[in-house]
Amino acid sequence: MRQSEISADQIISTDASSATVPAAPSRDKLLFTPGPLTTSLEVKQAMLHDAGSWHFEFNVLVASVRRRLLEIAGLTSAEGWEAILLQGSGTYGVEAVFQTAVPRSGKVAVLSNGAYGNRMAQMLDRASIDHILLSTPENEPLDPEPLSALLSSDSAITHVAMVHCETTTGILNPIEAIGRIARTHDKAFIVDAMSSFGAIPIDFKKCGIDFLISSPNKCLESVPGFCFVFCRRDGLLACAGQARSLSLDLLDQLKGFERNGQFRYTPPTHSILAFDQALREFEAEGGVAARAARYRANHQLLYSGLAGLGLRAFLDPAVQSFIITAFHFPDSPKFEFDKFYRDLSERGFIIYPGKLTRVNTFRIGTIGRLFPSDIQQLVYAIGALLR
Amino acid sequence: MRQSEISADQIISTDASSATVPAAPSRDKLLFTPGPLTTSLEVKQAMLHDAGSWHFEFNVLVASVRRRLLEIAGLTSAEGWEAILLQGSGTYGVEAVFQTAVPRSGKVAVLSNGAYGNRMAQMLDRASIDHILLSTPENEPLDPEPLSALLSSDSAITHVAMVHCETTTGILNPIEAIGRIARTHDKAFIVDAMSSFGAIPIDFKKCGIDFLISSPNKCLESVPGFCFVFCRRDGLLACAGQARSLSLDLLDQLKGFERNGQFRYTPPTHSILAFDQALREFEAEGGVAARAARYRANHQLLYSGLAGLGLRAFLDPAVQSFIITAFHFPDSPKFEFDKFYRDLSERGFIIYPGKLTRVNTFRIGTIGRLFPSDIQQLVYAIGALLR
Repeated sequence: MRQSEISADQIISTDASSATVPAAPSRDKLLFTPGPLTTSLEVKQAMLHDAGSWHFEFNVLVASVRRRLLEIAGLTSAEGWEAILLQGSGTYGVEAVFQTAVPRSGKVAVLSNGAYGNRMAQMLDRASIDHILLSTPENEPLDPEPLSALLSSDSAITHVAMVHCETTTGILNPIEAIGRIARTHDKAFIVDAMSSFGAIPIDFKKCGIDFLISSPNKCLESVPGFCFVFCRRDGLLACAGQARSLSLDLLDQLKGFERNGQFRYTPPTHSILAFDQALREFEAEGGVAARAARYRANHQLLYSGLAGLGLRAFLDPAVQSFIITAFHFPDSPKFEFDKFYRDLSERGFIIYPGKLTRVNTFRIGTIGRLFPSDIQQLVYAIGALLR
Repeated sequence: MRQSEISADQIISTDASSATVPAAPSRDKLLFTPGPLTTSLEVKQAMLHDAGSWHFEFNVLVASVRRRLLEIAGLTSAEGWEAILLQGSGTYGVEAVFQTAVPRSGKVAVLSNGAYGNRMAQMLDRASIDHILLSTPENEPLDPEPLSALLSSDSAITHVAMVHCETTTGILNPIEAIGRIARTHDKAFIVDAMSSFGAIPIDFKKCGIDFLISSPNKCLESVPGFCFVFCRRDGLLACAGQARSLSLDLLDQLKGFERNGQFRYTPPTHSILAFDQALREFEAEGGVAARAARYRANHQLLYSGLAGLGLRAFLDPAVQSFIITAFHFPDSPKFEFDKFYRDLSERGFIIYPGKLTRVNTFRIGTIGRLFPSDIQQLVYAIGALLR
């Protein structure tokens, strides 16, 4: 751990004008992004080894990682669940689910209120998989009602897909309410939980989740290189012959692990060594609850700190997650985002641009190996720059 | 560099029985595999940083890596060439080329003499892309003659695809002769040069290559996490609207780099930092020629050393590459590969199993941060075990 955890209220409130914000050449710039993010030194040091991808010692590690992922998710292989690692970014995992799980005659209802939901429609389009997009404004959670009506009227739909925490805005979507409707209509339910898994509790059974995709370089605080998919074993076995891609064939990937414990194709060995360490740190910190508490403290400090500087968050607090927060540009004609971004970067803080279509925002992530003291430093720096 | 380079003839010939082969707890086991392989400590240390994937400093690095790859290939962007990085293993890159470059009405002639050639046919099959497989026995190089006859008789064929160095056996296939036929018949030519690029010179123009796929964790001695594709810009632009996958859409990936210098989706940032360092070391060593010389010395020492122990290589030396070599099991009823593999592993050497369908072989790779002195140690260890 880079530094001990400090709760928000332990931090001495300092007038921003007296705070010095030095350039930080002795450490990496801190990443206030939705990932790749700041990781612990120990996670990165785990990559100082070369592992043989065919070697039995590495395969034992892969099996251990898969088992521990199930534990974090509250699932067991005895109950028929699998955690499947797949090379590539999180987007590859989402596409792998679609390319593998949806039959030629299938149709997907995609609920979207942001770029990542829209990307689902884009990948279905590219793969010539029939789909329908139910859009909600970017500042409103996904709405279960239109889905209910749609599923009653369109019997061709076989799958329902959505993003849990839409990082376009940081909005948290109601997976339980939407999952209940999917289940009522007997549709398979696919959840992109890229930026939420590991910090926001997810009850797979209550939500009726069939496929959930997430990433090591979000709330599990590891490095990028692969993604992972939770699914029911029997559900995946029923997908035989459906995949339209070899690389993204999730069932074939599972069969590879079962055949000899190995990835079918070269895995990012160093990323997996790092993930093993990241999972140790996750468990040592206290799992989902502890991580949620730290991120919530980060978010609250950011939210109140920037509010104190007159910066308004884009979302209603009631639907705002503690993962990433979108802020309106300040009400000043002199504000230039590029300059603001570069000035913060010079001070050692990397924030994230907005992704909204019609409103000017920037985003600040509060996940990764970041603590309230880091947030406080960022708030000071922003305050100094805006003055 | 882990140790200074030693040429094969500088190594003192020692009777194997007097050589001690200690367990090697102070360093990683050496990987005599086709990758992931042993890399330098400096390459791994480059991963001790967290880079922002949207950040301008990282984008400058990505642009630099793409430019240096073109230089290694002897290509220039002024002449219309591109080097495109793609998340995932090398197999993803090969599939991305097929999924992007072959039109719906296209047909691919795949030449194969091993598992990686056959995998091309498998991925075309999965993507419902019409293709025909021209097989050659595993111990014979691909034959240009049947291709010539096929292209004369089947005008539906639009693309010719092959593997340069087939790591099933280590056989080197004649890309120039086959490329000439593809060009004569005006077909696009796709080469999987995964395990050869960087150590075996490839003349893109003479071979008439349109797409060439390779990997950082082969002769460029970096870590896995992504692959790269060389192609002609105008050829790729002509593929608009063809991709059947979003993640594997190579044209969209190029457009992403050109839009804002970024990967479209989360890149393996640490793998790219490592690659930057690996390219520095590649250049410092003396580029393709120097790497070829070291690997050739490694291979010759291995070949003669194991011959001295009575082990026969599977291939005729005339077609054998210096990348990886397949050896027949020893002529002893007592030989058990699993025990042999584990005994070598205990001594700090990881070799590779065979992949031949009808002959029992094991394989030993001679690429990566390995020097003749390492090969000599491996030969000693094998000698001690076989006695």
